[in-house]
Amino acid sequence: MRDPEEFNDWYVEIVEKAGLADKRYPIKGMNVWTGYGWKAMRNIDNFIREEFDGTGHQEVCFPLLIPETEFKKEADHIKGFGAEVYWVTHAGENELDVRLLLRPTSETAMYPIFSLWVRSHADLPLKTYQIVNVFRYETKQTRAFIRMREIHFFEAHTCHVDFEDAERQIRENLEIMERLAKKLCLPYVLCKRPDWDKFAGAFYTIGIDSLMPTGRTLQMGSIHQYKENFSGPYDITYEDADGEHRHVHQTTFGMSERILGALISIHADDKGIVLPPDIAPIQVVIIPILSKKDKDKTIQYCDDLSRVLKSIGVRAHMDDRELRPGNKFFDWELKGVPLRIEVGPKDMEAGVITTARRDSGEKGQITKDRVASGVQDLLADIQESLYRKVKDEMFKHIHRVSDLAGVKEGINSMSWCGVEDCGHEIEDVTEMAILGVPTSAEETEGGCIVCGAPTKQVIYVAKTY
Amino acid sequence: MRDPEEFNDWYVEIVEKAGLADKRYPIKGMNVWTGYGWKAMRNIDNFIREEFDGTGHQEVCFPLLIPETEFKKEADHIKGFGAEVYWVTHAGENELDVRLLLRPTSETAMYPIFSLWVRSHADLPLKTYQIVNVFRYETKQTRAFIRMREIHFFEAHTCHVDFEDAERQIRENLEIMERLAKKLCLPYVLCKRPDWDKFAGAFYTIGIDSLMPTGRTLQMGSIHQYKENFSGPYDITYEDADGEHRHVHQTTFGMSERILGALISIHADDKGIVLPPDIAPIQVVIIPILSKKDKDKTIQYCDDLSRVLKSIGVRAHMDDRELRPGNKFFDWELKGVPLRIEVGPKDMEAGVITTARRDSGEKGQITKDRVASGVQDLLADIQESLYRKVKDEMFKHIHRVSDLAGVKEGINSMSWCGVEDCGHEIEDVTEMAILGVPTSAEETEGGCIVCGAPTKQVIYVAKTY
Repeated sequence: MRDPEEFNDWYVEIVEKAGLADKRYPIKGMNVWTGYGWKAMRNIDNFIREEFDGTGHQEVCFPLLIPETEFKKEADHIKGFGAEVYWVTHAGENELDVRLLLRPTSETAMYPIFSLWVRSHADLPLKTYQIVNVFRYETKQTRAFIRMREIHFFEAHTCHVDFEDAERQIRENLEIMERLAKKLCLPYVLCKRPDWDKFAGAFYTIGIDSLMPTGRTLQMGSIHQYKENFSGPYDITYEDADGEHRHVHQTTFGMSERILGALISIHADDKGIVLPPDIAPIQVVIIPILSKKDKDKTIQYCDDLSRVLKSIGVRAHMDDRELRPGNKFFDWELKGVPLRIEVGPKDMEAGVITTARRDSGEKGQITKDRVASGVQDLLADIQESLYRKVKDEMFKHIHRVSDLAGVKEGINSMSWCGVEDCGHEIEDVTEMAILGVPTSAEETEGGCIVCGAPTKQVIYVAKTY
Repeated sequence: MRDPEEFNDWYVEIVEKAGLADKRYPIKGMNVWTGYGWKAMRNIDNFIREEFDGTGHQEVCFPLLIPETEFKKEADHIKGFGAEVYWVTHAGENELDVRLLLRPTSETAMYPIFSLWVRSHADLPLKTYQIVNVFRYETKQTRAFIRMREIHFFEAHTCHVDFEDAERQIRENLEIMERLAKKLCLPYVLCKRPDWDKFAGAFYTIGIDSLMPTGRTLQMGSIHQYKENFSGPYDITYEDADGEHRHVHQTTFGMSERILGALISIHADDKGIVLPPDIAPIQVVIIPILSKKDKDKTIQYCDDLSRVLKSIGVRAHMDDRELRPGNKFFDWELKGVPLRIEVGPKDMEAGVITTARRDSGEKGQITKDRVASGVQDLLADIQESLYRKVKDEMFKHIHRVSDLAGVKEGINSMSWCGVEDCGHEIEDVTEMAILGVPTSAEETEGGCIVCGAPTKQVIYVAKTY
């Protein structure tokens, strides 16, 4: 696997060279989304929207600023986030009576309003989400998409009549994640975090982790069961069918621009990044190979081709800059465009186009009469094989280990009795973190890797970002 | 025209009743976008995106926070906005070295980066836009969509080689606005503002005003020619073909959630709001008229109908709540759904559906075999006739006046010599504001309405929000 420092240098450089973000903004940890990076992020957002709209969630948008008084209602939450919030203390020339904070996440903005929206069991389940900017005053080294102080953020918030219905929501979330991963070409493991690592205020937390090429995992998102932990302090109650007032049970599902960071990290080679076709701002770049005499004709041919592809919904772009084809190849490979089409005099004569896949480098030809379906098939195949490849790669690095000295790079699966002391021992000895109990794992007979006590519980352990 | 106070009360009530926003958020001037209101706004955003993507603009996203040091570089700009910005002074437990402000608009966030992006004439024109939240500490009475402290905002920013190319951009912006207005069903007048009313830092400002039912105009957006006013202080220069370094000329185009506020205000009647089909979150509501024996069959019929309409891209919704049809009619009329379909046993027997237009109340029938095209035609007709109606209404209230005592409710067109003293006299006597010189106006022979000096210049004068 790649050396973390070398990888980090590569990552910083490739984000800049591929033109995904500009980090020269004069505030550390707050980058500019360029046109190219923002389009990729918006494609990701649209898949997320499709999934959540399709499962009966309503997109809403809550204010960015939260009064300190509301923020402080849930004790664990303020403990978890208090040290990393930005405070607005003045407006114009005035000092504010109540300080306002920039949301680090929106529980404390939403829940006072949920307590007004939810009246009776007929209002439940309440399923909402929003895609907004959130703010965390990170003290660690910042890095584009991975660790930022202004974060492009997705958060779903739901309210339910009881714990069981909230659990159903969490199962739905896991299904959503599975469908999303295919569209994003992003394999992941799901682990129920140990108690000491759960979200501030949660009853339990499921982390969504992806394995980076360095062997460390990156948390791309998380799903939380809150039970009544927030509905108590925020007084979110409903009248049930018998006229009794009860607190709702709540869940959340959070994801962020880290998805893009993970995509860039996982799908890459020496030539640059490799964007999955479903995410790529430009899916197909068309490069005219010009000879002097056929220049106009070739450009016209490429332009027509671009129009045909656009008309069937393919994001095509013709690159007619005054550059040598080799330089153009280099540029678009760097930027991860999944498919390149070359058209030169010979191709036109033969009635074909030449294709080059970004993932495998494989070249091919498509006859002119089946360009539309040929390109669509190729894109679908690239999407599928990219996902297969990175999924295989991840599973190759999940190892079953039976003693702590045997942990390897990647994700280590081991038995744990569940006692916190043994858990900390695991983390101390391996210098790794417990990701938690994988939701997918079969139960295994075995003894705790520390104390040997019989247990059926398996955990994943890895170095993390 | 409607009494301003009565209208204001009506507006506040209808926004709440139609469920477009929730103003119970515990910070004044910061509302919650509900699912219904947010969908309408996002439909508007998507039309804006279509227009700007289609004219070669790149969507970007700049950070929310701006260092005080960057903000203060353009003197007029800070004078204009200084009194209404929110200040972030602390992060976690730390006091910040440099105070950060929440963007009231993004010139001072973008232009330090533009100075890095623009190097040579080949980088120009640079055409960008973003759709973000901005913040203004309004001291006047706040009102949903119309006057908020957190504002959903669109802003296009462009850089050009010279003044003439920036002027071309402004002409393109006027064309964009014309196309947008049709989709939004929102008539407007364009006026070049008098100097004392231009945007802080602009060379000139064109206001985009809509006439409210009270006879007052509401500025929904504005287009600005900056010339070199910002590129000087922010050092945005390029090397021209001769190797000379020159400052770029800049333009901006801003619009906000006020578009939705104007839509709601203009398209409404005693029954509630009326949403243009292109904007409406629900374009068609289907209401089963249930008799005991045919209940299941009717629901099934309506469900199929809903599916057919959705498959052709119509935003349809079947309302199968346990309520009397009359109550449902009332609800959806209030919420402005453009078309209602009723299906009862008699309709099913006759093989028809019954339609009711929200705009005219007109009822009709469509035979089952042409439901798809019939509904699409009706929606197109509603869209068109709504626009025609409000456009006619606006033009009816543009009056040519030749003495200041003769001003009427609405927009008054008069001759003005252009001297500032005469301008202020007009505003003082009429207790109205000069909107400016309409971009559409033919020149007229006449004398200044104050001093009588011969002039060809016409201005619009109105009470404003």
